[in-house]
Amino acid sequence: MPLSPDPALWLRRAVSLAVANVENGGGPFGAVVVKGGELVAEGANLVTSTHDPTAHAEVTAIRRAATKLNSHDLSGCEIYASCEPCPMCLGAIFWARLDRIYYAATQLEAAAAGFDDAHFYQQLALPPTQRQIPMHATPIPGANDPFLAWRRFSAKVPY
Amino acid sequence: MPLSPDPALWLRRAVSLAVANVENGGGPFGAVVVKGGELVAEGANLVTSTHDPTAHAEVTAIRRAATKLNSHDLSGCEIYASCEPCPMCLGAIFWARLDRIYYAATQLEAAAAGFDDAHFYQQLALPPTQRQIPMHATPIPGANDPFLAWRRFSAKVPY
Repeated sequence: MPLSPDPALWLRRAVSLAVANVENGGGPFGAVVVKGGELVAEGANLVTSTHDPTAHAEVTAIRRAATKLNSHDLSGCEIYASCEPCPMCLGAIFWARLDRIYYAATQLEAAAAGFDDAHFYQQLALPPTQRQIPMHATPIPGANDPFLAWRRFSAKVPY
Repeated sequence: MPLSPDPALWLRRAVSLAVANVENGGGPFGAVVVKGGELVAEGANLVTSTHDPTAHAEVTAIRRAATKLNSHDLSGCEIYASCEPCPMCLGAIFWARLDRIYYAATQLEAAAAGFDDAHFYQQLALPPTQRQIPMHATPIPGANDPFLAWRRFSAKVPY
């Protein structure tokens, strides 16, 4: 996809969503998914209002875009976020195969407002055994069985 | 929370979910959220069946657990995953404030089965400008407005 002709236009929309969401009792984040210059879906942070810790603005916008396009694969789309995506959202963006990411504020500005995005980037960069949440690799017998089943299953849909 | 008395028991359940999910046309991943030795919620990978690129097993189990406990904060809970969580799921686990992570297979075994978990860990560790998906920091005027609104809003619910 070519560069968007006016990233600032879509970013202003994402920022407006974020500001409005605070007034609605949500977190200060918004995101917009665009394809070929047309809006596909948008979302704001719904973590506390829906009791869903994964309902960040980007994840919400991606889920809505995927529903609208009837596909888990959003290649050909761009995402515009009011703030630099956190590790969860960046992971979601990679899995959704989005083409390009624009963001307005940075993870440092989010940190200054009390959010853990920058801290979690530091945590993910550590070896698993050094992270704040203990991670126990436990290679039980049969741990690889799901992948054996996957290899054998002829009707699988890769992603 | 104390260490689970039998992590292998819950991991076997996560692995069984993963195997069964392949037979149902889903991805080879399962996860279980446990609190005080009791099952809270479980999930399998529903990416292709629900057209939701974020519907990994851990994210699905976390969403269901948060709905059941009526809170975005899952502190006091542990997660058992059939495979090492990908960056998106690990980010979700941090945001959900889970106490502890057990996993059976590793990201390398997932990579051997054709999944991008290990690749995405490498991508997240790069500076934003060097990642495979172009990331454009675009500090438009007003980029910090959502955080100003957040600071001003007296009824906010932190997370």
